[in-house]
Amino acid sequence: MNANKGKTISDKGLRRLPKILSYLQELQQYGENTVTCTPIAENIGCDPTQARKDLAACGAVGRPRTGYDITELIALIETFLGWNNMSEAFLAGAGNLGSALLGFRNFREQQGLDIVCAFDNDPAKIGTEIYGREILPISKLSNLARRMHVLIGIIAVPAESAQGAADAMVAGGIRAIWNFSPKTLEVPENTFVEHADLSVSLGALTAKLNLALKKEEVEHGR
Amino acid sequence: MNANKGKTISDKGLRRLPKILSYLQELQQYGENTVTCTPIAENIGCDPTQARKDLAACGAVGRPRTGYDITELIALIETFLGWNNMSEAFLAGAGNLGSALLGFRNFREQQGLDIVCAFDNDPAKIGTEIYGREILPISKLSNLARRMHVLIGIIAVPAESAQGAADAMVAGGIRAIWNFSPKTLEVPENTFVEHADLSVSLGALTAKLNLALKKEEVEHGR
Repeated sequence: MNANKGKTISDKGLRRLPKILSYLQELQQYGENTVTCTPIAENIGCDPTQARKDLAACGAVGRPRTGYDITELIALIETFLGWNNMSEAFLAGAGNLGSALLGFRNFREQQGLDIVCAFDNDPAKIGTEIYGREILPISKLSNLARRMHVLIGIIAVPAESAQGAADAMVAGGIRAIWNFSPKTLEVPENTFVEHADLSVSLGALTAKLNLALKKEEVEHGR
Repeated sequence: MNANKGKTISDKGLRRLPKILSYLQELQQYGENTVTCTPIAENIGCDPTQARKDLAACGAVGRPRTGYDITELIALIETFLGWNNMSEAFLAGAGNLGSALLGFRNFREQQGLDIVCAFDNDPAKIGTEIYGREILPISKLSNLARRMHVLIGIIAVPAESAQGAADAMVAGGIRAIWNFSPKTLEVPENTFVEHADLSVSLGALTAKLNLALKKEEVEHGR
């Protein structure tokens, strides 16, 4: 239980761990037993020293020459990320995106995230089931979160309803919010928010392509 | 047509634009006509000077006191992001995540992204339709991308197949790849990759929650 004891990890390091984990799982599928920092760093595109630090934060210690035991390393990273125990999550918003998230089995199978209830304001949706999960009125979210000790909330409502959903989550004791709306949320200091709005990464991609194509047009004198 | 003429924008700025756009659309819904940098910056959580620079990069010029015309500003940002014209995209991987992406109408309605074809290796999927899009063998991706002049590719295959899908996209002339796999892709210099692996942001969130809960356990002497 001395994982992360006295070790710190940067936000960038945190974001490297799921990539490292995926690479280790790939190696395991190919029958590999041990791995050193160098191929890990190469695969995820970072410095070997950084990779070593990230793994040390998870409590992993490599042996000279042989490196890390892959099975052990996978278990340490999963523990560090909190993915080896099933965590229950509430979902606010059962529209197009929310439904897609409910149907995405990987969360449960790979990240141990079980979306146990979904909430919506739409009377036509309330009481129906999506992928086996009943849709409840959003007014019930706070009480139910507190009763069920749910700590993770997912926001998939439109921007104008996002702060209200976040407030209901916080009131229910939810401490980690995965925000798929474009709204910047205000939450208490002890609550974590991770912004996963897809329009942000799509925007960065299409804008870069757009700028490059315009530049090429100018260069080619068209 | 002098949007972005001589103006540069940081990667962080690029990522603020979709959030600003969403806020402007909200204001428009409430019947507002003009807006200054201060409420924009407040809403998305940045400095007013940064917001002004981001908007200047899109070619927007605010008037003293009144600020920006909202309708005009929305059009300028959408043009800058390349969202006002429908862009065609190819999708590699018609599994659980790929299907969810095919069904997510917002891409078409809000970001002007039309996923016109989906590709997969699974013979059971090839020839079937998901949300009205036929699933084609991945071997046809390159030729079809070149023939249809598709420039955007979306990768929703497992990590071990991601590089192969990226290679096929690059061979077909695709210049912008939206990568939902955990794999770090190698692509030529003139190709843009945006990593949108959901496990990365989920991992950052659950790890932070996990670390905080452990710290609190220690502090409360439990």
